[in-house]
Amino acid sequence: MTLQRKIEDRWNSLTKPPGSLGRLEQMVTHYGRIRDEAMPSLKRKGMYIFCGDHGVTAEGVSSYPREVTGQMMRNFLAGGAAISVLCRRFAIEPVVVDAGVIGEAPAGVVDRKVAAGTRNFCTGPAMTRAEVERAIEAGRELAGEAATRFDIAGAGEMGIGNSTAAAALLCAFTGLTPDDAVGCGAGVDAAGLARKTAAVRRALTLHQPDPEDGIGVLASVGGFEIAMIAGFVLEAAVQKLPVVLDGFIATSAALAVKAIEPAALATVFYSHRSAERGHARMLGYLDAEVYYSLDLRLGEGTGAALTINLLKTALTLYHEMATFDEAGVSR
Amino acid sequence: MTLQRKIEDRWNSLTKPPGSLGRLEQMVTHYGRIRDEAMPSLKRKGMYIFCGDHGVTAEGVSSYPREVTGQMMRNFLAGGAAISVLCRRFAIEPVVVDAGVIGEAPAGVVDRKVAAGTRNFCTGPAMTRAEVERAIEAGRELAGEAATRFDIAGAGEMGIGNSTAAAALLCAFTGLTPDDAVGCGAGVDAAGLARKTAAVRRALTLHQPDPEDGIGVLASVGGFEIAMIAGFVLEAAVQKLPVVLDGFIATSAALAVKAIEPAALATVFYSHRSAERGHARMLGYLDAEVYYSLDLRLGEGTGAALTINLLKTALTLYHEMATFDEAGVSR
Repeated sequence: MTLQRKIEDRWNSLTKPPGSLGRLEQMVTHYGRIRDEAMPSLKRKGMYIFCGDHGVTAEGVSSYPREVTGQMMRNFLAGGAAISVLCRRFAIEPVVVDAGVIGEAPAGVVDRKVAAGTRNFCTGPAMTRAEVERAIEAGRELAGEAATRFDIAGAGEMGIGNSTAAAALLCAFTGLTPDDAVGCGAGVDAAGLARKTAAVRRALTLHQPDPEDGIGVLASVGGFEIAMIAGFVLEAAVQKLPVVLDGFIATSAALAVKAIEPAALATVFYSHRSAERGHARMLGYLDAEVYYSLDLRLGEGTGAALTINLLKTALTLYHEMATFDEAGVSR
Repeated sequence: MTLQRKIEDRWNSLTKPPGSLGRLEQMVTHYGRIRDEAMPSLKRKGMYIFCGDHGVTAEGVSSYPREVTGQMMRNFLAGGAAISVLCRRFAIEPVVVDAGVIGEAPAGVVDRKVAAGTRNFCTGPAMTRAEVERAIEAGRELAGEAATRFDIAGAGEMGIGNSTAAAALLCAFTGLTPDDAVGCGAGVDAAGLARKTAAVRRALTLHQPDPEDGIGVLASVGGFEIAMIAGFVLEAAVQKLPVVLDGFIATSAALAVKAIEPAALATVFYSHRSAERGHARMLGYLDAEVYYSLDLRLGEGTGAALTINLLKTALTLYHEMATFDEAGVSR
């Protein structure tokens, strides 16, 4: 009997109509297949928050100053950010990673800084290919460590300007137009949205990225934190570590993974469909099903944390519900 | 300053872009307005599981024998059902109510039995008007007690055959056709679905229910547990007790409330959009927004329990996140 069949048989033995827990049943099956266990547990939970700065902020694409990236890293460590609160509530261990922030990484941050922010991709490549490869390698190393520490890992991000990079990646990998891909991110006004859309359009014209060259696309219009998430996902697949991707920006890393090594997406959970304009299409391109649609547009890993907790709930049902025989209920 | 403005100001003072927690922000605002508090707490959580039997099972509308209603009540009490597991995990107190089950209510059940199951509504009214009024009154009394015990109450149900009643209510109140309203419930096959659809069609022809007569529609094609949920919602509104309705069947009670006293729906949270065919349209008719879309089709209060826990998470964010000033983050 295959493992999938074993898990489905267990679900069908429990006191409920077959399949009636819907996506909760499916997520346990997916998790069990990744972990290669019919009765998998979920105890050790990690949340990696990859942080990076973005040269494209020079184009006026964000309503927040670039300094906020570093300030929020300190807020993650101090426990005051949304993701900090969710990690406490759900017993998830946060790991704050400096992938490429301007300024010194504060104590408590995992320092994997490749460079002090990307360059403005409207005037040249955001990163060199070598920088992208270093970011991916750092992500791979972090996933290797994560596999020894955690049963599951969330991947979130922080970086002023990074929804512009994610939208540019969406256009580059899928052919979507900037008008359909660029959204309001953390909340730019109409003028900011116009600048953001124009910046992505200029970048695409300048770089003419080849969608089959994952590294090249990342170098042209990506970000350090996004490349590092791509590396994290690639190695997590090797390690059989389930990874829960957060929203629009974290999921843009999956576009690069799909170009580099599509089989690596088999160990990914997608978490939510955000309010960001291009997110639904990004998820569609990845054939990704999500668990929440709450108009979140915060990032940090907030949607991934909710999804890890939902999986924990689904596993609790799977382990603790009575069977028809135990409960004396007619089938 | 209005209470709503106070709550929104608090959200906007926290270290995140304004509005970026989407529906989580809105649910806290809704809850605070019902509780009339700017910093509301959520400690005491109840889950009422209203149970009833249905004479329409004589038409072969369900794939489960009618005995399962009583068997599942015992499973709720023993802690083996899905809702039992969720209540334990989320610290919600379950209250199992016999609204009209065949057979004696087991010890531990709140006995509000109006009668031993409804009559087959294909051949006559499911209940008398007096029976409906007794069920509503019992629901009101339970909500009155709930308001003294809990900060919030979920409303779920169990009753073999009750998705047929809920579909008939949907047709009667909204004018939807049986083909659009009747779904597979706990999982009937194609032949069962055809019998179920035909049963609803016959009932509508027989009773010609008046959609403005909430009591009359309930008497014609409703159920004891559904009428009792309607009474519960009506009184919860008076008591300012937030009520979280579960899925297709629990939400069908809101159709009756809308006909009887539409303002009472102001204290309701809807929880999820289920896999059941008519549910999306039912929610649309009620202008109801939900928090989950997980293809659940189990009932019992499972979606309501998930939603109560999501509200608790949203409130934790609201109370525990740092403000921009506290964290030293630039706006």
